[in-house]
Amino acid sequence: MGEETNVFYRNPFADYPMVARGEGIYLVDTKGKRYMDACGGAVVSSIGHSVREVVEALKTQLDSCEFAHTSQFTNRPQEALAGLLAELAPGGLNHAYFVSGGSEAVESAIKMARAYWVQMGRPEKWMVIGREQSYHGNTLGALAAGGNPWRRAIYEPMLYQRPRVAPCYCYRCPFKKDPAHCAIECADDLERAILEVGPEKISAFIAEPVVGATAGALVPHDGYFRRIREICDRYDVLLIADEVMTGMGRTGKWFAMRHWGVVPDMLCVAKGLAAGYVPIGATLVHDRIVDTFTNRRNVFQHGHTYMGHPLAAAAGVAVINYIKEHNLVDKSAKMGEELLRRLHEHLDDHPHVGDIRGKGLFAGVEFVADRATREPFEPELGFKQLVGEAAFKLGLIIYPMAGTIDGRRGDHVLIAPPFIITKAQIGRLVELLHKAIDKACDTLRAAGKLK
Amino acid sequence: MGEETNVFYRNPFADYPMVARGEGIYLVDTKGKRYMDACGGAVVSSIGHSVREVVEALKTQLDSCEFAHTSQFTNRPQEALAGLLAELAPGGLNHAYFVSGGSEAVESAIKMARAYWVQMGRPEKWMVIGREQSYHGNTLGALAAGGNPWRRAIYEPMLYQRPRVAPCYCYRCPFKKDPAHCAIECADDLERAILEVGPEKISAFIAEPVVGATAGALVPHDGYFRRIREICDRYDVLLIADEVMTGMGRTGKWFAMRHWGVVPDMLCVAKGLAAGYVPIGATLVHDRIVDTFTNRRNVFQHGHTYMGHPLAAAAGVAVINYIKEHNLVDKSAKMGEELLRRLHEHLDDHPHVGDIRGKGLFAGVEFVADRATREPFEPELGFKQLVGEAAFKLGLIIYPMAGTIDGRRGDHVLIAPPFIITKAQIGRLVELLHKAIDKACDTLRAAGKLK
Repeated sequence: MGEETNVFYRNPFADYPMVARGEGIYLVDTKGKRYMDACGGAVVSSIGHSVREVVEALKTQLDSCEFAHTSQFTNRPQEALAGLLAELAPGGLNHAYFVSGGSEAVESAIKMARAYWVQMGRPEKWMVIGREQSYHGNTLGALAAGGNPWRRAIYEPMLYQRPRVAPCYCYRCPFKKDPAHCAIECADDLERAILEVGPEKISAFIAEPVVGATAGALVPHDGYFRRIREICDRYDVLLIADEVMTGMGRTGKWFAMRHWGVVPDMLCVAKGLAAGYVPIGATLVHDRIVDTFTNRRNVFQHGHTYMGHPLAAAAGVAVINYIKEHNLVDKSAKMGEELLRRLHEHLDDHPHVGDIRGKGLFAGVEFVADRATREPFEPELGFKQLVGEAAFKLGLIIYPMAGTIDGRRGDHVLIAPPFIITKAQIGRLVELLHKAIDKACDTLRAAGKLK
Repeated sequence: MGEETNVFYRNPFADYPMVARGEGIYLVDTKGKRYMDACGGAVVSSIGHSVREVVEALKTQLDSCEFAHTSQFTNRPQEALAGLLAELAPGGLNHAYFVSGGSEAVESAIKMARAYWVQMGRPEKWMVIGREQSYHGNTLGALAAGGNPWRRAIYEPMLYQRPRVAPCYCYRCPFKKDPAHCAIECADDLERAILEVGPEKISAFIAEPVVGATAGALVPHDGYFRRIREICDRYDVLLIADEVMTGMGRTGKWFAMRHWGVVPDMLCVAKGLAAGYVPIGATLVHDRIVDTFTNRRNVFQHGHTYMGHPLAAAAGVAVINYIKEHNLVDKSAKMGEELLRRLHEHLDDHPHVGDIRGKGLFAGVEFVADRATREPFEPELGFKQLVGEAAFKLGLIIYPMAGTIDGRRGDHVLIAPPFIITKAQIGRLVELLHKAIDKACDTLRAAGKLK
């Protein structure tokens, strides 16, 4: 870094290809190499690249008004997008607080929960409980709410400290239970934490319905979120669903919480909301929270410059309309089944694949050194990196991550292609992934680090 | 809120007009009313609305690639924008870390300062010192760094606590000095705070070169930032310039810090960077910070989904090119002088105008109940609101704010029109502002609250 570029890269030692254009589920670099975008960047591109209808909608918006500050004006795109979200969201989540990304959406939810309790005459309630092996964003408030040790490590002195609870991680149950016969002890862990700190101090509990990048598409036990909702209600704790990755159709329903019929008090969306076309995020807010502000004639003390940005909101409207018109949420559900079927078909017997999981077009493959003992690879081997690099070389983009188990140990890849992917393309995706995994194993073997 | 809209508004009780289109320095609502945008939304729209060259550049970008994740690809717009910023920024600030807004830019700077000290073998350094009457963003980490009591109040338990230092506020000097003969005691207050906490704990000092919304375009004493730089160097404290409002030409130079020839270690920009066309922000980073990462082969542990977004970066490139081609930074300097001249001409003798200040097209007018004693209006009177509403009715958009003095007392308006504003338009602006101030006084008089 320094000689050739003035960009402070995510990784200054990576040799990034220059993107030239996008075409549906593919990206093409300036050397003409074509990549299947099988993780939508980072679970962003839900409808694929360069979708004509969205591009045209943005051009039309650019011809009227690119920006007017929402402390002075409202605009048609934000009104339309909020209307669509209210129509699609679980019952009662009828208001959208618009921001520019996932971290801002989570920060807004955390601050709104606090403002809610202050208004309710409970000013001692401010703490937000999160889970181990979760991630809610990289701004310091969002980072403090999550339990991603790798992302938190050097910033610990700057993060407000509060208890975290166990993840719902059936392949490696923290309570050593068999998921078929357990009592969902991981949900009850929230009650333990609330009682430990004192419910009078707890403002909210935040969770990803299906854990994203940190633990690789961890699908919770079927009864988990109903139990969580009960515990939250019992102790006057708000439930915030972080659907930044899972929202807008990714898991085969518009919102992942719909799988279990559980309505959170707030729900954060971002990545899929405008599918990457323009940066945007939103916190969907339940009527009962909104009412505490309106009934007391209070303003929510918060705000960002680009809230309700007309161009960003226009992208959201165009993306949702495209998803609706092409039944892409159903497609995410059906193609998701196909993806899991193919992953099982190819990898169930692989000696270094420990677990295959997911919902809709949101799947994770967890790697192990030993299938029987479920022992992970040594972190120093960088197995996920080897898989990711091998796949990239083969023209397949997936989302590799390490630290699956505890922030240090464990490797997985996340697969989250655009909903327009076809059966044949899924076949190709899984073939390439299989090859990349084998290639990574070969590399370790060649170095004498795998038998 | 609730019946007619699904948007969680900034102010649910405001009756927002619907914007129809933008035209240069004007916005037009759907009823055909035309407003002079004399504050660029919130110091955002530096080149005016619907600028053809920017709109065309965005349309061209949309035709190639709207988004590719920067963990997988780089893209031409982010490379070009980083190159332009390195060319324009004070010496050594050669790398741009791209994000989606001002809060994210500040959070990135705070975390980068921390990461820098950890790498330098000083892991005990993490605290960021800010100033009273400052504002650096609304995410919890940025909010904790600022000293805006009104925005902080209900969130205090969630903000990490560290000392704040005095503002450089010559009209109301915290040290009761005469600015013409003072020893810049307010700068030395930083040294006091560093020694009080212990320099071994302090990571960075953050300040707005010209304080924005919180205190209304407070221009510092000429020697202030040189002294600040010396103190930072003496105690190994990084200097972060928050130029989210002042950056990109607003004060008559590309960056406000250039007025005093002081180079910060990091510099945050956002609002003017793409002039509102697409949400974007950036942290400009000095070579010596970048080198600590590259020399140790470390990655900066941070990141957001929309970093280096191609469409957002394309907007930044187009805006900077437009500013360069039309010499708009010079225009901001010259028209800024005209604006201050006209403000003085109209308002110097106004019984309720206490101070007129600013640099470039970034001006503040502070109101008082009594010019002789500098006594502010009672906060309950809502004077700034009366001025803002009267102006809006007259078709003039300004940025009113209360709590100028201490977060509760004091009223001011911020004026920050697009750099393309003409002399005649400035004349009209100041006339309308004068009328709005008089109207606000009339309203108070009619209610028997002003003599």
